[in-house]
Amino acid sequence: MSEEYKTSLTDEHKNFLQGLFKDGASFDPEVLRVYASDASLRVGTVLAMVRPENADQLCAFMRWADAERVAVHPRGRGTSLSGGCVPTVPGIVVSMLGMDRILEISKEDFVAVVEPGVNTALLQAECEKLGMFYPPDPASGKATSVGGNVITCAGGLRAVKYGVTRDYVLGLEAVLPGGKLVRFGGRSHKDVIGLDLGRLFVGSEGSLGIVTKLTLKLIPKPEASASVLVGYPSLDAALASMGKVFAAGILPCAVEFMNETVLEILTKTGEVPWPDTVKSLLLFQVDGSRDTVPLENARLSKQLDDALWRMEGVGKEEEDRLWAYRRRVSAASYVLGPDRIGGDMAVPRGSILKAVRRFEEIAAANGKRLIGFGHAGDGNIHANLHYDASDPDDARRTQKTHHELDDAALEFGGSLSGEHGGGCLKDVGKQLGQEEHALMRAVRRVFDPHGILNPGKGY
Amino acid sequence: MSEEYKTSLTDEHKNFLQGLFKDGASFDPEVLRVYASDASLRVGTVLAMVRPENADQLCAFMRWADAERVAVHPRGRGTSLSGGCVPTVPGIVVSMLGMDRILEISKEDFVAVVEPGVNTALLQAECEKLGMFYPPDPASGKATSVGGNVITCAGGLRAVKYGVTRDYVLGLEAVLPGGKLVRFGGRSHKDVIGLDLGRLFVGSEGSLGIVTKLTLKLIPKPEASASVLVGYPSLDAALASMGKVFAAGILPCAVEFMNETVLEILTKTGEVPWPDTVKSLLLFQVDGSRDTVPLENARLSKQLDDALWRMEGVGKEEEDRLWAYRRRVSAASYVLGPDRIGGDMAVPRGSILKAVRRFEEIAAANGKRLIGFGHAGDGNIHANLHYDASDPDDARRTQKTHHELDDAALEFGGSLSGEHGGGCLKDVGKQLGQEEHALMRAVRRVFDPHGILNPGKGY
Repeated sequence: MSEEYKTSLTDEHKNFLQGLFKDGASFDPEVLRVYASDASLRVGTVLAMVRPENADQLCAFMRWADAERVAVHPRGRGTSLSGGCVPTVPGIVVSMLGMDRILEISKEDFVAVVEPGVNTALLQAECEKLGMFYPPDPASGKATSVGGNVITCAGGLRAVKYGVTRDYVLGLEAVLPGGKLVRFGGRSHKDVIGLDLGRLFVGSEGSLGIVTKLTLKLIPKPEASASVLVGYPSLDAALASMGKVFAAGILPCAVEFMNETVLEILTKTGEVPWPDTVKSLLLFQVDGSRDTVPLENARLSKQLDDALWRMEGVGKEEEDRLWAYRRRVSAASYVLGPDRIGGDMAVPRGSILKAVRRFEEIAAANGKRLIGFGHAGDGNIHANLHYDASDPDDARRTQKTHHELDDAALEFGGSLSGEHGGGCLKDVGKQLGQEEHALMRAVRRVFDPHGILNPGKGY
Repeated sequence: MSEEYKTSLTDEHKNFLQGLFKDGASFDPEVLRVYASDASLRVGTVLAMVRPENADQLCAFMRWADAERVAVHPRGRGTSLSGGCVPTVPGIVVSMLGMDRILEISKEDFVAVVEPGVNTALLQAECEKLGMFYPPDPASGKATSVGGNVITCAGGLRAVKYGVTRDYVLGLEAVLPGGKLVRFGGRSHKDVIGLDLGRLFVGSEGSLGIVTKLTLKLIPKPEASASVLVGYPSLDAALASMGKVFAAGILPCAVEFMNETVLEILTKTGEVPWPDTVKSLLLFQVDGSRDTVPLENARLSKQLDDALWRMEGVGKEEEDRLWAYRRRVSAASYVLGPDRIGGDMAVPRGSILKAVRRFEEIAAANGKRLIGFGHAGDGNIHANLHYDASDPDDARRTQKTHHELDDAALEFGGSLSGEHGGGCLKDVGKQLGQEEHALMRAVRRVFDPHGILNPGKGY
């Protein structure tokens, strides 16, 4: 972009922000350091941090920022793995954690109305208390905000059955650059009047406006669930089993896979229950009523007869024991190096075996190990590489591997990202056609004529 | 819009179209009369009809139409009830029925790749032969095209469990005004790179471009289903029962309701099995595996103990007998008058009883009967009014009722349309905020700078 952004704030600017946000504005370098980065560990330049408590404050701020041509970087809980919250251009970080209320959970309408800063796991828990279910379930849901989930269209463990965040956003309120408050959709489960700009915000990576309120669709809470962790002699055998499950007409709510390297790092960092002939794991979950889950579980088990080993869990406590292995992967990965480049490529479901095999070959050719796991049912591969940044050769080979993995995902007809978004780290131009990319940017300009919002991020 | 459109075609224009489309272009007044209208029975002015057989032809046509400022009205099978296919401005109708191939159904990737003209029911049948399921199920699916479903974001009978057409569009190819061919998304079930302009086409009512290819998500075909038709002494009792079903954690794949007027017209036009103490019906369907459906059915039945009467059906043949009553409603309605104004308002689920009651009062106050039925689980009310257009007083009262119903839907926080779209009949300005409407039009201009595509329709 050709814009020039303010690289520092004058006293007048600071007075304006202080007057508007009071204690919710900070210029303290200690504080700003926190807001300069996110879970990607990339670092940018923060001129100020502001924390609005209501939409009116945000409207006044966005009117000012647009007029002053100050770059604005909205932020939820900063869990982006693709640098979505990093101020790539010096600017003001807007923390939405001052707007984190659950405004309403309606048993009659099956909707939740929330502010964007609310924690995902908290919202899920509150819905479940009332017998309702908010299905989007990013693996990091305990840490994330719902606003962050919406702006990246977060997927998660249950997407194979329940879809992604997009499928649960009914209504949305946002403040645009220039300070206008707009509302799209509402609390009807269906609405096809007008162009669907509300859902265009979902996955827009903060490029169109700052979300201030969300109306989310809920469904009845399934009564029961069961999980099974299944071991195979090879990834090929594991993914062949998954194919049989889908072919048998079973739609599990989660299908996770782990490759041999994942099993190695889990074994190195703790006790594991599977024999060492197991080289790949699948983890399934089915849900439904108390009566139907045992039957679904039995149907599923029948398709898993090629397994070397299995461990079943019925009900939350037993299931959590199985899921704990999956949840340990990310932390355990650090035995392969203190620094990480993460991937979350998606490929067509039928190509997942070939894609993971190809990824493993690419890593091996560069002297690296591929930590391959993720949402097999969606073709969504977490392809992580660990390295030591203080070793320039290792760092170079890791970067090279990462780029080659991206290229390979595209060769399989896939996407550079199934969940994390482009952020400031993905080379989205590799994937998007030139015409299509230009259209995206032109639409962005309709919302943000001066390009103040999240410059350098998304697309 | 301020555009001036061509109101007639020169010989040069006709030669161009004839040269490009050969037999696929028509200027015959007899033929054009068919393309001047759709299921709304409104009539517009058609200058020519063209039927492209491939995207290249369509690109050349759209380049020409843009340069010549000729209005273009794309059309599938013409089943729009809101006048979405009617040329409100004199123009060329583009019939997409020349591109109606199923290009691929992949058991590995769980996707179907189709041209837009393919019939919805045919696609569903072909998927089911392979053990897969394309859930979007507009009640008129036997007549509609998938392209038409996509461009209106069709809902249908199974939306309460399976969502709407939007939720099944993974990738899309379209020709824009000016003749550019663009592609968004692909065959990955997940993809969050770039702004989601592909899904923005879904429900865009042909305002952004003409879709030439679709990649659709499929799921495993449920093995079995069961339906139950349940009679109550009042709509209040019926909808209270529906509330108990959802509260019990049951998510049926369909929940239809019919009000007293619907029961009357069904009784007048054929045999009905329910006693005349029944004044309202609910029709539920549950699906799943052969083992689980009987259990789900039993769970459902337990919540329906307030019913006066019920009739169960297990398996397609028995279920079809129950669904036949629901399918007869539209035709039976004509006993109340030879002309119709249809409504498909949506309200928040918890307001459906109050909304239907209010609709009935509004109709009665205008001396009309409300034919009220539809997708209760989505809060989507088909609110039809029949009248005799040759009776000016009846026509006036019917129009007045229709407008008052629209206003009432909005008062309940609802939408003027849950399925049919704005077309050329809905006063979308009643629902859309001024700022929001202006943004929609500005985005439309990004795709269609000269406003040649479907002018006067949508929003």
